[in-house]
Amino acid sequence: VALITQARDLKRRKGRERTGHFVAEGVRAVEELLRSPLEVLGALVSPQLAATPRGIALRETLAARVATVTEVNDADFAAAADTETPQGVLAIATIPTRTWVVVPSVGPLRVLVLDAVQDPGNVGTMLRTAAALGVAATVALPGTVDLWNAKVVRSAMGVHFTHPAFATTWRELDSWRQSHHVALWGADAHGVPLEANPASLPPRLALIVGNEGAGLTAEAVDRIERLVSLPMADVESLNVAVAAGILLYALRPDAAARADS
Amino acid sequence: VALITQARDLKRRKGRERTGHFVAEGVRAVEELLRSPLEVLGALVSPQLAATPRGIALRETLAARVATVTEVNDADFAAAADTETPQGVLAIATIPTRTWVVVPSVGPLRVLVLDAVQDPGNVGTMLRTAAALGVAATVALPGTVDLWNAKVVRSAMGVHFTHPAFATTWRELDSWRQSHHVALWGADAHGVPLEANPASLPPRLALIVGNEGAGLTAEAVDRIERLVSLPMADVESLNVAVAAGILLYALRPDAAARADS
Repeated sequence: VALITQARDLKRRKGRERTGHFVAEGVRAVEELLRSPLEVLGALVSPQLAATPRGIALRETLAARVATVTEVNDADFAAAADTETPQGVLAIATIPTRTWVVVPSVGPLRVLVLDAVQDPGNVGTMLRTAAALGVAATVALPGTVDLWNAKVVRSAMGVHFTHPAFATTWRELDSWRQSHHVALWGADAHGVPLEANPASLPPRLALIVGNEGAGLTAEAVDRIERLVSLPMADVESLNVAVAAGILLYALRPDAAARADS
Repeated sequence: VALITQARDLKRRKGRERTGHFVAEGVRAVEELLRSPLEVLGALVSPQLAATPRGIALRETLAARVATVTEVNDADFAAAADTETPQGVLAIATIPTRTWVVVPSVGPLRVLVLDAVQDPGNVGTMLRTAAALGVAATVALPGTVDLWNAKVVRSAMGVHFTHPAFATTWRELDSWRQSHHVALWGADAHGVPLEANPASLPPRLALIVGNEGAGLTAEAVDRIERLVSLPMADVESLNVAVAAGILLYALRPDAAARADS
């Protein structure tokens, strides 16, 4: 099948789930894809890519490293792409098979759990944040936007090509938490404000964040051991990705006040 | 002049600077505007607004509280609006006159300084974060996107109708910092990582953040007393609004380790 037809098919979650492939669009995402261990199946380019030296260099790398590179005109390219400014380059790659096995079974860790988070930009930003803060994995529960959606991939700037991010179910999450002794805390504007210098934090902790509008689902509320908020007046006006970033920072394993401080 | 012509003129920064007016677009922004102390001059609505009960309620509030409400068709409305989904409502209001006088001259405080930050979404998110974290003011240096740009207003969700946010110059900032004893720290991926539990922090501190791509300007680097980063490996991949949120949290006046902890 022609790359252009494949790319169009992969705009839909069904297409991605049937084939196990996804599309990375834009210079940065494709560069990061080529640096990652993921298998790249082909690339689609348009004349627009040659507009910048960085684009020309990427075109050369693709020619050297990817089996099939197809050049199409800008209009056909735009029709195949899913993001607004695809910059004349997209690549088709294999979605990595990841399960809970990749998450360390001993030692302090943090896991970010997405509970029906819908906005691709917020999910991409949270993936970047989790990767930057050393979070062991980011998992997406049912109801969350597909992690391999082109807008999420674009917004994450390639971090989940290497950061362990994958879809899971409540059952898998429950079973993994139970067998690996992992606490579950939920982020909520009406939760208990975190202490400035907590005396202790669970060494193994999963933080769950909900939909920007609707908050945490009933399934989440049923399971959560503690609802946490930030020690400020007006957290409800925080963007969900900023709130998640601050909480992951405040709850990092070495954030607890040390005995020698 | 008809509201529709005014709204079109206010899409440009020049139009806003000449008239001292700005446009708030969308249900949430207009609701927040009506709750704020700002003077509302008129509103433009289209049939789309009546599609939701919340829109109908807003239409009634506008009719009761705003002198001029003009109804136009959806196509004319879209041409007058600047954001992508203006939801059939926009309002024209007076930009508040704010200067350094509004910032408390004594007591612990934090100020967020934007140094040539260009992305309206990131600026709006940072305004929300600053307001939520109790920051005393957010100031925009030359080169930063106009705080009253429709996309910033939309993204800030109305917080800078009440949060003291205003444009300033290096000269005004220098003079205010000197006369009011305010330290200046800069956020930079290559800065000194913050300690987990700092023993002390300046009571009065301005944090300056730069452009996502280019970082801090030379004017900023010349003035900064300390470049700070986060205690993690890979901060470069953090979104600027998330990084600013974590730093403002980590540097909040009560974040320093207390003697009794």
